[in-house]
Amino acid sequence: MERFEVDILGCGSALPTTKHSLSSQVVNLRDKLFMIDCGEATQLQFRAMKLNFMRLNHIFISHLHGDHCFGLPGLISTLGLLGRTAELHVHAQPDAEKMFRPMLDYFCKELPYPVIFQAFDPKKNALIFEDRTLCVSTIPLKHRVPTAGFLFEEKPKRAHILREMIDFYQVPFSQINAVKDGADFVTPDGQIVANARLTRPADAPQKYAYCSDTSYYEKIIPIIEGVDLLYHDTTFGESEAVRAKQTMHSTAHQAAEIARAANVKKLVLGHFSARYPNENVLLTEAQAIFPNTVLAAELTCLKL
Amino acid sequence: MERFEVDILGCGSALPTTKHSLSSQVVNLRDKLFMIDCGEATQLQFRAMKLNFMRLNHIFISHLHGDHCFGLPGLISTLGLLGRTAELHVHAQPDAEKMFRPMLDYFCKELPYPVIFQAFDPKKNALIFEDRTLCVSTIPLKHRVPTAGFLFEEKPKRAHILREMIDFYQVPFSQINAVKDGADFVTPDGQIVANARLTRPADAPQKYAYCSDTSYYEKIIPIIEGVDLLYHDTTFGESEAVRAKQTMHSTAHQAAEIARAANVKKLVLGHFSARYPNENVLLTEAQAIFPNTVLAAELTCLKL
Repeated sequence: MERFEVDILGCGSALPTTKHSLSSQVVNLRDKLFMIDCGEATQLQFRAMKLNFMRLNHIFISHLHGDHCFGLPGLISTLGLLGRTAELHVHAQPDAEKMFRPMLDYFCKELPYPVIFQAFDPKKNALIFEDRTLCVSTIPLKHRVPTAGFLFEEKPKRAHILREMIDFYQVPFSQINAVKDGADFVTPDGQIVANARLTRPADAPQKYAYCSDTSYYEKIIPIIEGVDLLYHDTTFGESEAVRAKQTMHSTAHQAAEIARAANVKKLVLGHFSARYPNENVLLTEAQAIFPNTVLAAELTCLKL
Repeated sequence: MERFEVDILGCGSALPTTKHSLSSQVVNLRDKLFMIDCGEATQLQFRAMKLNFMRLNHIFISHLHGDHCFGLPGLISTLGLLGRTAELHVHAQPDAEKMFRPMLDYFCKELPYPVIFQAFDPKKNALIFEDRTLCVSTIPLKHRVPTAGFLFEEKPKRAHILREMIDFYQVPFSQINAVKDGADFVTPDGQIVANARLTRPADAPQKYAYCSDTSYYEKIIPIIEGVDLLYHDTTFGESEAVRAKQTMHSTAHQAAEIARAANVKKLVLGHFSARYPNENVLLTEAQAIFPNTVLAAELTCLKL
C-alpha cells in the first residue's frame, strides 16, 4: 500500500493552550504533502514533526477565522528563507487573497517563489484540485462564516501484476504498464492470456474527509459516505450542546451520529475546546454511538 | 527593590527553530507588563511563562519584519476571547496600523476592547510613553527597514523613610508622603528635623535598553550610556561578519564593543541565527571584550 496518512499539527479550537495547537494538519499521500488549515505556529509544528517543507505545494484553508489561517504569513515567509522556488498554491475562498496578499506584498517583498491563491466557493461541493493520484473537493459546512471541509480521494489505482505469471508467460517489460492498466497479453504464437490471469485487483482507493468547523449538518452525509477516515469538529461535549449550537460547532455525540450515518470506517475527533483538561469525556460520548472513534492529538500520525 | 525584569519569550532570528522562538520579550515593571516585539507564536510563549494577559496594556514593535510582528493578530484575538475590555496600545511606526487594522477589522469584528495604534518615528530618539513610574523612548537603529530600539527608564524614586526616626519624632501618617518626597518635618514645638535624618536615599532608577535588529551603530552609545541591562542584536559570530554587514545585523564582537563603549552594566545577547547549534561561540567572542555578558534563552527571566 502506498503511503496515505494524516499528520495532526494542531487540533485545538480558537484559544491555543499549552496542550493544544491551533488547527492544522498535513495529508501525506505518497510523500506529497497537502496542508489543511494553518493556524498560528503551524510552521513550528510542521518542523517539530520533521516534515519536509519542500514537499508542500498546496495549502487548503477551510474558512477565514484566525485560528485556521494566522500561520500563513509566517509559513510563507519561512519557505522563502529556505530558498523555495516552486509555486505554492493556497486554496481558499476569495477573501483570503484580499487579506493576505497585502501582507505578503509588504512583508515578503523578496519572496523567491510565487504564491498563487486559488479561490473556491465554499457553498459548493466541487472538485478544486486534482493530480495524477488525487482529487480534492470541497464539502460545504455550516458555520458562522462561509466554511468548507475537504474530501481527499485517491484516484483508482492500477492492478498489481503477478510476478510469477509475468515470468511464466514471458511478458516483455514494454507491456507491463498496459497489463497493469487492464490489457490482455498476446503471446508470440497468438495465444491470448486474460488480464485476470496476470494480475490481482488494485487496492481500493482511499478517502479522507476533513469537516471542521461545523454545526451538526446532515447534508454532508452523502458527500462523505464510506470514507476511510473522517475528522469531524468536536469542540464540545453533550453538556455544552447549547453552546455548540450558538457557536455553530459540534458535540462528540453529533460527530458520531454523522460518522454512523455516513458509514465511515473510522472517526477522529478534533477542534477541542480549551475547557476540557482531557478529552476522554468526548471520546466516551462518541464511542457510545460510533465505536471506531479516536481522539486527535498533536504530533501524531493517522494512517488510512 | 521593586520588581523590574525582562522575560525572554523568543530570541531567535527570522527562521524559527525547535530551539528558538521568534522575537518577543516582556518588561515586567512592578507587575505591569510591557511587550517588546511580537513574532509568531508569542502568545504561546506568553502562556508558557505563566504571565498574566490582563496585565499587558502596551506592545512596542521595533520594526515591520514578520519575525517581529506576525504574532500580533493572534495575540489580539486571544485577548478578546479572554474577555478583555481595557484598551490595548500598540506602539509602532505608521505602517503597522495600515497593515494590521484591515486584518483586525476582518478577523476580529467582535473584539470587546479597543486596539489603539500609536505611531512613532523610528528615526528619532523621543519619549513615546510615560506613566507614573516609567518612561519609554525610541532608540534609532540601523537596519534594512526603519527600526527603533526602546529605552525603558524608571522615573526617579522616592526616598526610603527610616521607620525608627519617624517613630522617634512622632511624624504623623499624613506627612509621610511629604517626607518621602524630600520635605523636612517640623515638630509641634517648632523644631525642624532635616529630611536627611528621616530618610535614606532612593534606589537609583534602573534602565533597560532593547537594541534589535541593528548593524553596529555607534550613534546609540550616548542614548544607552550606563544602562543596567542592554539586549543587543547578536545574530552572528565573527566568522559571519560579512553576512552580518550585508543583512544589517551585528556580531557578538560588535555587540560587546557597543556595551563597553556605553558603559552598560550587563549585556545580553539575542536574535541568534539558526546556524548556531549552540551560542557559546558567540558568548565567548563577546566576553573577550565585555565580560559581564550572558546569552538570552527562551522562557528565562533577567532581573535588573
